[in-house]
Amino acid sequence: MKIIFDMFGSDNGPEVLAQGIFAAMRREKGLEPVLAGDKEILSPILDKFEWDKQDVARARVEILDAKTVIANEDSPTMALKQKKDSSLVVAINALKERDDIHGMVSAGATGAVLSGGVLLLGRLEGVLRPALAPILPTADGRGVCVVDAGANMDCRPEYLVQFAKMGAAYMGSRGMESPRIGLLSVGVEDKKGNELTKEVFSLLKESGLNFLGNMEARDALSGKFDVLVCDGFVGNVLIKSVEGTAGLVVKMLKQSIMSSSSAKFGALFMKKAFERLRGGMDYHAGGGAPLLGVKKVLVKAHGSSNAVSAEAALLQAYNMIAARLPEKILANLAK
Amino acid sequence: MKIIFDMFGSDNGPEVLAQGIFAAMRREKGLEPVLAGDKEILSPILDKFEWDKQDVARARVEILDAKTVIANEDSPTMALKQKKDSSLVVAINALKERDDIHGMVSAGATGAVLSGGVLLLGRLEGVLRPALAPILPTADGRGVCVVDAGANMDCRPEYLVQFAKMGAAYMGSRGMESPRIGLLSVGVEDKKGNELTKEVFSLLKESGLNFLGNMEARDALSGKFDVLVCDGFVGNVLIKSVEGTAGLVVKMLKQSIMSSSSAKFGALFMKKAFERLRGGMDYHAGGGAPLLGVKKVLVKAHGSSNAVSAEAALLQAYNMIAARLPEKILANLAK
Repeated sequence: MKIIFDMFGSDNGPEVLAQGIFAAMRREKGLEPVLAGDKEILSPILDKFEWDKQDVARARVEILDAKTVIANEDSPTMALKQKKDSSLVVAINALKERDDIHGMVSAGATGAVLSGGVLLLGRLEGVLRPALAPILPTADGRGVCVVDAGANMDCRPEYLVQFAKMGAAYMGSRGMESPRIGLLSVGVEDKKGNELTKEVFSLLKESGLNFLGNMEARDALSGKFDVLVCDGFVGNVLIKSVEGTAGLVVKMLKQSIMSSSSAKFGALFMKKAFERLRGGMDYHAGGGAPLLGVKKVLVKAHGSSNAVSAEAALLQAYNMIAARLPEKILANLAK
Repeated sequence: MKIIFDMFGSDNGPEVLAQGIFAAMRREKGLEPVLAGDKEILSPILDKFEWDKQDVARARVEILDAKTVIANEDSPTMALKQKKDSSLVVAINALKERDDIHGMVSAGATGAVLSGGVLLLGRLEGVLRPALAPILPTADGRGVCVVDAGANMDCRPEYLVQFAKMGAAYMGSRGMESPRIGLLSVGVEDKKGNELTKEVFSLLKESGLNFLGNMEARDALSGKFDVLVCDGFVGNVLIKSVEGTAGLVVKMLKQSIMSSSSAKFGALFMKKAFERLRGGMDYHAGGGAPLLGVKKVLVKAHGSSNAVSAEAALLQAYNMIAARLPEKILANLAK
């Protein structure tokens, strides 16, 4: 299965991404990565791996040459038009045009990846607005999908109903039967919310989805819901506040520990507990966020991706393709 | 200084509130609490305190009899009309009518407190929409005020500009010179955001406030900002996700500790570090959330208030009155 990887535009450069791709190839023998980016940089990186020793055929990797890069500072739509030879545009065009490429991962500029998905790759038939759908960690380890997490700032009620259906298809493709949908609001009562969510509430009630009703942000990570539906502005605030708060709590605990010698002594014995916590909250290990509703599988990996997150995002795309997610989304929207 | 305390409608009952009030009276000798609620319940509670032993004159406390209670399940506007003898309505009416009462605290039903503030007490002249303004803890201990945190679901740009001015007056009254204002958005770039925030951005640029620009939710608790401006729906999502995430991280750490005997041993030595962390994140110790923009000081304490939070909320109201906050808000709005 061929999946294209946009090798440029991330914070940590192509080498760590290549390490993750190599690791993913060891895990999934059917995976054939296509790397988009400057061949003169990528070839020497690939030369360093122990292909034969690790029993991975180098012939499974293809490089698609692309000489420039879209930066975070570039205007997304301008850059897509002007930088036709960028790794991102070359990758998306190959994804669109080549029948043998089924999905794509990019850790590049978020705005350009989202715009490229919508404008170059195109929407699935009937999709009003593709939506970004990262999975946040929950206490029980199942994870919860937030859709939309930032692709659409101003939304109409029908968009959010489609977000719910696409999110349900996505979580369904990960083995969850009848995913539990929550509408992010300011209280659990039916009438709580703003004009948008009140309309969406009525529509979701009649959607045939497993809609549990309104939910509050304090229950986002509780494990009571599999899909949280919201507009992209609110979803973005939610995921970033989760990230910021988790970071602050850990930082405050560290400060507390460093200010006391008995606590420092105790921390020695708690090292593994801290590591397990970090593992549980680590978004790198969770892969990336798919843009749901475009014609093929497209995963936006974190801009600060390391080898672990590149591997996870690639395997995530692999599993989404294997589960035929775009077809499942089409089927859910038609219901 | 007389401040009225709505003694009923909170989760933990009037006794813990009374304990907090007694503690506040010991701290501030000029504080004269007026307790609204059923006299037959409140008098025996007051009888239990060691007034003379602790050198607190019982004559400083007044009870305003009120026989019923507004519950969380009641429709706020209906309840305000029908339950004229509720502790909340009696309290707000006394606040409005009596010149000797300068502020109020309630730990009762949020919707009813907010509606009561707007409909019964009334807005300051020129205020378009009063707004709820809790202070979240930051790493540096200064705290950050989120306004609006849930009083106004659907907002026009002018409302948010006033939220910024009222929040600046509030943080100014707490000793912060030229409070740093951030507009909650999805990125730090000037053009990021939804239709509402884009308009607000332009207006704040010209407001004369110390406006630092757009900020992301991940920086909400960073200490880089003193006032975060947003609509009440988004603000409510923000504060509840901070609360939920902090709770989850602590829970996950506890689980990690309990699953390992060496970590359990280590935790013994870290007990104080955990306690300091809890102290830092404890919203009980921070008091309540004021409703900014109404005619007198009105503080909504947490529904699950204990003695510590009741004391903190009462002292907070005391300080807001001493700083003449309503006048400061009027002055800021006129600028």
